[in-house]
Amino acid sequence: MTENSEFPIVHLISAPENPLKTIYLACRTCYSAEYPYKIREKDTDPEKMLKLVKKVLQSGHHSTIEHCQYTFTISGVTRACTHQLVRHRHMSFSQKSQRYVTEKGQFEYITPSTVKNSGLQQQYDALMAEIAGFYDRMIEQGIPAEDARFVLPNAATSSLVTSLNLREMIHLANLRLCVNAQHEIRKLIQKMCGLVVEKEPWLGEYLVAKCEKSRYCDEIRGCGKFPQQVK
Amino acid sequence: MTENSEFPIVHLISAPENPLKTIYLACRTCYSAEYPYKIREKDTDPEKMLKLVKKVLQSGHHSTIEHCQYTFTISGVTRACTHQLVRHRHMSFSQKSQRYVTEKGQFEYITPSTVKNSGLQQQYDALMAEIAGFYDRMIEQGIPAEDARFVLPNAATSSLVTSLNLREMIHLANLRLCVNAQHEIRKLIQKMCGLVVEKEPWLGEYLVAKCEKSRYCDEIRGCGKFPQQVK
Amino acid sequence: MTENSEFPIVHLISAPENPLKTIYLACRTCYSAEYPYKIREKDTDPEKMLKLVKKVLQSGHHSTIEHCQYTFTISGVTRACTHQLVRHRHMSFSQKSQRYVTEKGQFEYITPSTVKNSGLQQQYDALMAEIAGFYDRMIEQGIPAEDARFVLPNAATSSLVTSLNLREMIHLANLRLCVNAQHEIRKLIQKMCGLVVEKEPWLGEYLVAKCEKSRYCDEIRGCGKFPQQVK
Amino acid sequence: MTENSEFPIVHLISAPENPLKTIYLACRTCYSAEYPYKIREKDTDPEKMLKLVKKVLQSGHHSTIEHCQYTFTISGVTRACTHQLVRHRHMSFSQKSQRYVTEKGQFEYITPSTVKNSGLQQQYDALMAEIAGFYDRMIEQGIPAEDARFVLPNAATSSLVTSLNLREMIHLANLRLCVNAQHEIRKLIQKMCGLVVEKEPWLGEYLVAKCEKSRYCDEIRGCGKFPQQVK
Repeated sequence: MTENSEFPIVHLISAPENPLKTIYLACRTCYSAEYPYKIREKDTDPEKMLKLVKKVLQSGHHSTIEHCQYTFTISGVTRACTHQLVRHRHMSFSQKSQRYVTEKGQFEYITPSTVKNSGLQQQYDALMAEIAGFYDRMIEQGIPAEDARFVLPNAATSSLVTSLNLREMIHLANLRLCVNAQHEIRKLIQKMCGLVVEKEPWLGEYLVAKCEKSRYCDEIRGCGKFPQQVK
Repeated sequence: MTENSEFPIVHLISAPENPLKTIYLACRTCYSAEYPYKIREKDTDPEKMLKLVKKVLQSGHHSTIEHCQYTFTISGVTRACTHQLVRHRHMSFSQKSQRYVTEKGQFEYITPSTVKNSGLQQQYDALMAEIAGFYDRMIEQGIPAEDARFVLPNAATSSLVTSLNLREMIHLANLRLCVNAQHEIRKLIQKMCGLVVEKEPWLGEYLVAKCEKSRYCDEIRGCGKFPQQVK
Repeated sequence: MTENSEFPIVHLISAPENPLKTIYLACRTCYSAEYPYKIREKDTDPEKMLKLVKKVLQSGHHSTIEHCQYTFTISGVTRACTHQLVRHRHMSFSQKSQRYVTEKGQFEYITPSTVKNSGLQQQYDALMAEIAGFYDRMIEQGIPAEDARFVLPNAATSSLVTSLNLREMIHLANLRLCVNAQHEIRKLIQKMCGLVVEKEPWLGEYLVAKCEKSRYCDEIRGCGKFPQQVK
Repeated sequence: MTENSEFPIVHLISAPENPLKTIYLACRTCYSAEYPYKIREKDTDPEKMLKLVKKVLQSGHHSTIEHCQYTFTISGVTRACTHQLVRHRHMSFSQKSQRYVTEKGQFEYITPSTVKNSGLQQQYDALMAEIAGFYDRMIEQGIPAEDARFVLPNAATSSLVTSLNLREMIHLANLRLCVNAQHEIRKLIQKMCGLVVEKEPWLGEYLVAKCEKSRYCDEIRGCGKFPQQVK
């Protein structure tokens, strides 16, 4: 599979039913004398809810959006990518184990577009085939999967179920939609955010690279879209 | 309001649609070569799902249940109780602010049953009325709510929206359903767990005090139900 | 005790020996082929270390400063303040328990300066004396401390041991040094930051209110020092 | 390098000066009316401190040990191992980046002992040499390190600086010293715990596999040392 293929495969399998209403409820609970279950019973105008929620989010009161959790299935991402992804400590992960699941006869991998474009695809594929062959041979000779996998490359694909709340999703977008993020994780987060925004278009303005919010760039090497931060 | 009243008022306002299916998917993703979205498309027998999930939970692989999040509204709990509750750092909270919401003319409080039973209820109520009167007077004289609240007692009630995943909920039950937990937080967690178990009876065996699982007591002073741990 | 007194009492009881060296090591480990223990053996010029660390911090790579942890003892802060403080979920807390420690005969409290200035100090003290008297009476009548404390006010003082890493300390300063933070927590964080900066003057530029870094104000009501964010 | 070599290389570079005293202080602050800085000034008998601390730890009050943080440098661990390690979300990590640091001409790897013992070492080394050669060629042809690394195997070594508090260290030991843990992470955690116990022998009884504490085995396949948990 090359980077230009349909990978990673991402499905949004659980989303809050009415995130705007829940966030509005959380905000109002903080600043109101009414019992929250009574606030919730009222039929509040969506425009009014949106106005308050946007104001609260702009002021940085982001704990109010932790009540909205999203769950995704992800397949066809490399272990290079997942090693980065699992560094997000506010996310929950259930990942396919290379210790317990053998890749014998079914090892899949991703080819970066730079490799494809450089004319090295054939050699790359040949190396992958050789790795797969040696992996299979090790398994056949009784080496446990957890040791045979030592030869598997970063390009090998993995699968995950992952959950995160909206606060972490905005943080993830802020960091990983930057052009300096690794292309694969960037594509993954774009897909994840796209699925959320499809359901809740009003979240689109928050699920962006950090510079889109701050209007400046704090990267050491910027892309030029916004001025570099000078202190 | 006394402890024997209907307080705290707890509503479960968001729960996963099919937690068993989601947890099963998370477990299977770890130990299977199949893509998770394909596992999910299959119509698996609930008994089979339950069997795997129970086995995985028993072996302590609890990250698989983080994908299920529950959201509650809570009212009529004391600030004594919420100060304990917010110590649970894996939970999310949106709590009524005593800095921004004035209690003028509407200060509510809880009376512990020990006070009621000791014959001190009348004096207790008189003290609360005096506190309320002085609070109102401070607000009238222009003292900001965030300072006037300095006289408000631990008995004053609060409201919250809170979210937590199933892993944290089991942890909460394990700790706070112990008879050594403060009676109010114990009652609160009983209500929260009750609402979850009503929807998912199979979770009942996990949402218990820690001793029910370990069959021994690690408290310094036990209640006698299980033997004290001796090392 | 009034707000203008020496309270809260804050001591820094544990600090990293050479935080600059540790952060430099963390940064260099990320971007260097050398083994970290070999990087550490070298005697690097502090100016050079400071230059790299500042560059990395400016680019938002804040996980590198999590290796530096600070521990404080705090006394003479109100429970109003600690209820806010313990909301910081990346901090560790050991707090004096009102369930296990009786306040009989030794109940302490703080008077906000607005109360003092409004001429209500005498009535405030009288109310506190009445609360203390009723608390003592409840204890004498055998009511458990965990229930007697229901009458204790937010003004009652508490004690804690707390630990946090430098990343969280900067976050804490960013939020709680804002003029919109409650005055008591602001004073507490000022003292904590002051003790750290005394040891490490170069950290002074990071331990500031968020606006000092962003050069704009995202509060709903600003103090006028920096322009309000307009989106 | 083979698994039997001196790898991983682990150094403990920061440890609390007097963890017993700090934990004792945390425990006493919870259960005492005295100000913590005054408790700390006293010269308490180590035996007395140890007795209280052990009692508190046995009762599961583990937040008191979060005040003790340890920092390690680690080199010569595989990316297979670090992908597991970084799943511990209460730890802090600064890891050598395969995106920014090129492995050209200096790619190191580990050979599992099962491979060595199976007689496949020579072929394993040959495959690694081939991978290294193709990696170098990609770098030479201008493919960025972040893409060239797609061919690097799980066996490739990495370096980290990591910090964790004592609570997480005990949790890590409980899980990863089990014989069912992957051999490399088990060896790593053994070394880390060994360095801590060298300084604080009294911690030895806590830094053990979970079964040593519970006296039963909750793994699906146990090693036979303790009886399997039956419910």
